[in-house]
Amino acid sequence: MAKVSAMRFSKDTLYLIDQRMLPEKYEEFLCCSYQEVVFAIQDMVVRGAPAIGVAAGYGAYLATMQMAPGEGYEARVREALQALNSARPTAVNLMWAIQKAEEVLENHIAEGKDGVVKAMKALADQLFIEDEAINKKMAAYGNEIIPQNATILTHCNTGALATVAYGTALGVIRKAHESGKHIFVYADETRPRLQGARLTAWELVQEKIPAKLIADNVAATLIRDGKIQVILVGADRIAANGDTANKIGTFMLSVVAKRYGVPFYVVAPTSTVDMNIQTGEEIEIEERSKEEVTHIQGIAVAPSEIQVYNPAFDVTPAEHITGIITEKGILKPPFSESLKPLFNI
Amino acid sequence: MAKVSAMRFSKDTLYLIDQRMLPEKYEEFLCCSYQEVVFAIQDMVVRGAPAIGVAAGYGAYLATMQMAPGEGYEARVREALQALNSARPTAVNLMWAIQKAEEVLENHIAEGKDGVVKAMKALADQLFIEDEAINKKMAAYGNEIIPQNATILTHCNTGALATVAYGTALGVIRKAHESGKHIFVYADETRPRLQGARLTAWELVQEKIPAKLIADNVAATLIRDGKIQVILVGADRIAANGDTANKIGTFMLSVVAKRYGVPFYVVAPTSTVDMNIQTGEEIEIEERSKEEVTHIQGIAVAPSEIQVYNPAFDVTPAEHITGIITEKGILKPPFSESLKPLFNI
Repeated sequence: MAKVSAMRFSKDTLYLIDQRMLPEKYEEFLCCSYQEVVFAIQDMVVRGAPAIGVAAGYGAYLATMQMAPGEGYEARVREALQALNSARPTAVNLMWAIQKAEEVLENHIAEGKDGVVKAMKALADQLFIEDEAINKKMAAYGNEIIPQNATILTHCNTGALATVAYGTALGVIRKAHESGKHIFVYADETRPRLQGARLTAWELVQEKIPAKLIADNVAATLIRDGKIQVILVGADRIAANGDTANKIGTFMLSVVAKRYGVPFYVVAPTSTVDMNIQTGEEIEIEERSKEEVTHIQGIAVAPSEIQVYNPAFDVTPAEHITGIITEKGILKPPFSESLKPLFNI
Repeated sequence: MAKVSAMRFSKDTLYLIDQRMLPEKYEEFLCCSYQEVVFAIQDMVVRGAPAIGVAAGYGAYLATMQMAPGEGYEARVREALQALNSARPTAVNLMWAIQKAEEVLENHIAEGKDGVVKAMKALADQLFIEDEAINKKMAAYGNEIIPQNATILTHCNTGALATVAYGTALGVIRKAHESGKHIFVYADETRPRLQGARLTAWELVQEKIPAKLIADNVAATLIRDGKIQVILVGADRIAANGDTANKIGTFMLSVVAKRYGVPFYVVAPTSTVDMNIQTGEEIEIEERSKEEVTHIQGIAVAPSEIQVYNPAFDVTPAEHITGIITEKGILKPPFSESLKPLFNI
């Protein structure tokens, strides 16, 4: 099959696979302005922390092109970068990419608009290219901990659709399969947005990796009954102590895994680590709209009068995590120590 | 509001609220034959262990009327009872009701068809009337353990729609609300069939009980964060040692509740206890169709090629259960001891 990627960039247009439509429809969503990139991130046309980061890089580039040159150019670009930065609050990769864009703006503003535009394009392309390389490094490290004949449980979508290509947790699964290991995957459907059912199941089918889809409610019994050898999840933000924000439902898996002694690994690039926050308590958890729960593909599945609590993420405490698989190797607890050298601390 | 009930029986017709349609449409499904009752149970027009038991009682009555009298009458009725009995495998209330129907058949067969029909109608009516009375007794006992200002978590639907009226776990919630306590309810949506979103949320709205609907993935963080004072669930079958089969996802809640010290109560009539099985390992867990997971109200949410594992129930071990609230009082662990006196053992 052709290589799956959440996005491509060509002729000053960002083409995103519209992940709201999968698996029913495969369509591209075109962004010719940074405002369209903001919308695409907010509405989850593109999702997955690494993919959001790279999309934001191209959004920053589009912003540098859109703004009129001359006096106030820097302020206008900065405002656009802020709009990108606040499109979603939890994934740190977005902030990390925008911080890099701000540095580029600062370093090249003396060259005028042309200089900034050129440097921002180079940054966006660099983020794009690096992402796949980083994922492949993580996958190679991660494959070391996958036993032959392993049954692996995963949550949400952390594959080629959540990144530029290959994936984080699903990248490790991909690598284990490619390396010839016999593996079997259980994919949580991942309510409310059903990224597991819509996206991970789709990627697993494309790759012909033996797998079954389950309702999120099923995972705990599989873990207890010894049917899962390893759990692999992604991350949206990792605190300096290893506490990890990820898709809602991850924490629940971690509690059950801890109780029944099943290894629980987070797979994430070091760009997902936020050394500015000490623990998970400081991570802002995005709450999304009621309709994500009460409606599925536009159809009501609950009475309109009911209130809803719909957090998009939860925080898994470091003590539930067996290891963090990064592009620089597999980190072991205590993460407050093992994370430091990666950031020259 | 008018009292909600999963069913009514009038002029030899069983009227079931078609729970596949709620909350979008409120329609009755009419059963004039035992075959229609079998279908209604299999397809979940009626669901909830107590409601299934009572519906089966009326199904047995319809069977006694349908069969031609004379030679072979007993065998024909017995065959119909077997069809009802095997409509769904996990809820013991169904088997319990059919066992009572078999006793009626045996005790009245000497009176011929007319005698059997009359006695079977009396049995069905008795099961119908007893169910509400039993639920109200459970609710009164259960209300004792609900603190003022409690926030309660519940799973699936255990209300008036799962019973003849009032409910089991949701009956306790109803009673606490009626008794003037300030309570707040979080209702799990309960994938894959969404009984929480479609049915429990509907009942809570009808009763004006303050509540929020959540994706099943959210419950664990609420439990950890001290936002839940008590968890109330129903049961489909309880083994002699207290192990409890209930809707898929219940076990997961019990693991998290145990870990974070939140009381976890099962609310079920003694007809749900199966003293013939010693532990939960002996309970057959129904697997249902792939489409329950891959489609929601007829719309595909997963690629057609993906395989699915779709168990309808799981087993919560007795050691995760704080108490079992029955119509005969609240049982405390060890349940292998506290259950015995209820069955004169």
